[in-house]
Amino acid sequence: MTHRRKVFFVSDRTGITAEVLGHSLITQFEDIDFQRTTLPFIDTIEKAQAVAQQLGDICMQEGHRPVVFSTMVDSQIRNALRQRNNALHLDFFEKFIDPLEQEFGMQSSHTMGKSHAIDDNDDYKTRIDAVNFTMANDDGGQTKYYEEADVILVGVSRSGKTPTCLYLALHYGIRAANYPLVPEDFGSMTLPSVLQPYRNKLYGLTIRADRLQQIRNERKPDSKYASLDNCRFEIAEAEALMRRERISFQDATHKSVEELASTLIHTAGLTRRLF
Amino acid sequence: MTHRRKVFFVSDRTGITAEVLGHSLITQFEDIDFQRTTLPFIDTIEKAQAVAQQLGDICMQEGHRPVVFSTMVDSQIRNALRQRNNALHLDFFEKFIDPLEQEFGMQSSHTMGKSHAIDDNDDYKTRIDAVNFTMANDDGGQTKYYEEADVILVGVSRSGKTPTCLYLALHYGIRAANYPLVPEDFGSMTLPSVLQPYRNKLYGLTIRADRLQQIRNERKPDSKYASLDNCRFEIAEAEALMRRERISFQDATHKSVEELASTLIHTAGLTRRLF
Repeated sequence: MTHRRKVFFVSDRTGITAEVLGHSLITQFEDIDFQRTTLPFIDTIEKAQAVAQQLGDICMQEGHRPVVFSTMVDSQIRNALRQRNNALHLDFFEKFIDPLEQEFGMQSSHTMGKSHAIDDNDDYKTRIDAVNFTMANDDGGQTKYYEEADVILVGVSRSGKTPTCLYLALHYGIRAANYPLVPEDFGSMTLPSVLQPYRNKLYGLTIRADRLQQIRNERKPDSKYASLDNCRFEIAEAEALMRRERISFQDATHKSVEELASTLIHTAGLTRRLF
Repeated sequence: MTHRRKVFFVSDRTGITAEVLGHSLITQFEDIDFQRTTLPFIDTIEKAQAVAQQLGDICMQEGHRPVVFSTMVDSQIRNALRQRNNALHLDFFEKFIDPLEQEFGMQSSHTMGKSHAIDDNDDYKTRIDAVNFTMANDDGGQTKYYEEADVILVGVSRSGKTPTCLYLALHYGIRAANYPLVPEDFGSMTLPSVLQPYRNKLYGLTIRADRLQQIRNERKPDSKYASLDNCRFEIAEAEALMRRERISFQDATHKSVEELASTLIHTAGLTRRLF
C-alpha cells in the first residue's frame, strides 16, 4: 500500500523558496506519494486563519496531519497559520533567522518578499540582456555576436543545449550561445570555422545514443535523423571532435537542466553575473 | 562602516537548493555586504575536510566566522565539514529531516541528488516540450499553434513577456506563448483577430511608463519607440484594450520574473505540469 500525504507550501510571497525547501526534503521519502499544493501570498492574519481552517479539515478527513513547509517572515501571521495545530509545521525562517541574528548581532528586517524581489535595475538588465542574447544566439541561428558570449555550448542536435543556455541566462545572467554539431561538421578534422576564434568559450554536451534516439523520435518519428545508427554515428563523431579539440564536455543523459548548468559553471569556471 | 561577511553555499550536489535557501535568509540582513561562494559537489569526506580547512583559514583572516548554508544528505560528510568548528553551519537537511522521519514513521533515503535529478523521462519531455513551444511562439513570431498554448501573454514591447514565458516553461512545464500589443492594434476597439479565439488563455503584463522608457532607451536610444510620450501612449492604450476585453493583467514594474510567473499561475489558475 502506498503511503499518501498532503503537503503544502505556504508563503507570504511567491512560495518559491518554500517549494525548493520542501521539494528537496520530500524527495528523500521515495515511498510516499505526495500531493502538493502551493498557497502563495498568505500575507494577512485572516488569510493565514483560512489556511489553518483548511488544514484542520484535511487532518479530519485524512486521519493524519498534512505537512506544511512555510516561509513566513511575520511571526504573527506564522502563528495564525498554526493556531489549530493540525499540521506538521516546518517554517524555514523560524528555524534559521534566530541563529543568524545572533551571529550577526542584529535584527533581520522581517520584510516580506526580499528573496525574489528586484534588488536593483542593474540586476534586472543583466538578466534580461542575457535572456535576449541567448534567444538570439540559439541553435547556431546567428554567429556574429559570439564575441559577446560568455560561453558557447556545442553538441549534437537535441543534446540539451537550448534549455541549458536558457537556464544559465535566467538564473545566472550568463550570455550563453549554442551551436549544433551536425554531420557536415564531422568530415573535416577541424572545428567549424565560425567557432575557431572562440575556442576558449566552447563547452560540450553529449548524450547516450538510446536516449537521443528516443528524444529525436518524438520529434521526427521513424526518420534517419532519429535512427539509432545515426544517433550513434553523430555522437561518436561529435565526441571525437570535442576530444581532438580539447573541449570539455559532460554527458546530459541523466542530468537535469539545473545540474547541467551548475556543473558547467563549476567546470568551466564561469563567472555568474547574478546571484 | 558596512559590515561584510563571507557566506558559503555547500552541497553534495549542485548547490542550487542551498543557494535559494541561503539567499532568502541573507536578504533579510540588508546592512551586511555578503560575499558569496558556492562549493558544489562536495560529496566525499576528503572534499569536506578541504572545505573545513578553507573555512578555518578564512575565520583566522577575517576575525569572524564565515556562514555556511549547506544541504548535505550524508551525515558523515556533513560532520567532516564541521570538524574545525570555524563557521556558523546551517544545514537544511539536518534541521528538517528528523521531524519528517518522525512524522512519516520511516527513514529518509539519505541519497544525494534527489532534488534536481530527473525524476522520470515524462518530466524531462514535459519541460523540453514547453521550452521548445515557448521559444517557437515568442513575440508573436507565429500564431498558428496557439491552440496548444496553456497561456498567451500580451503586453507592449519590453514589458517582460519573454522572460516570464521562459520561466513558466523551464520551471513549471507550462506552454507559454506571447504576443506583443503594438500601436497598430490600438486603433480598432477589438482584440487582434489572431487572439480572438483564445480569449480565455490571455493574460496581460503592463509596466510604468518611466521604466519602459528606460528599458527601451537601452535598446534603441533616442528613438520615438523609446520616448516617454510614446511609452505613455502605448501603455494607456494597451491597458484600455485589456480592460475592455476583460483580460486580467499585472504590473511588472517592480516584480521579478519569479514573482510575475508565480502570480500569473495563482491568478490565472494555471495548472503547472512540473513540480
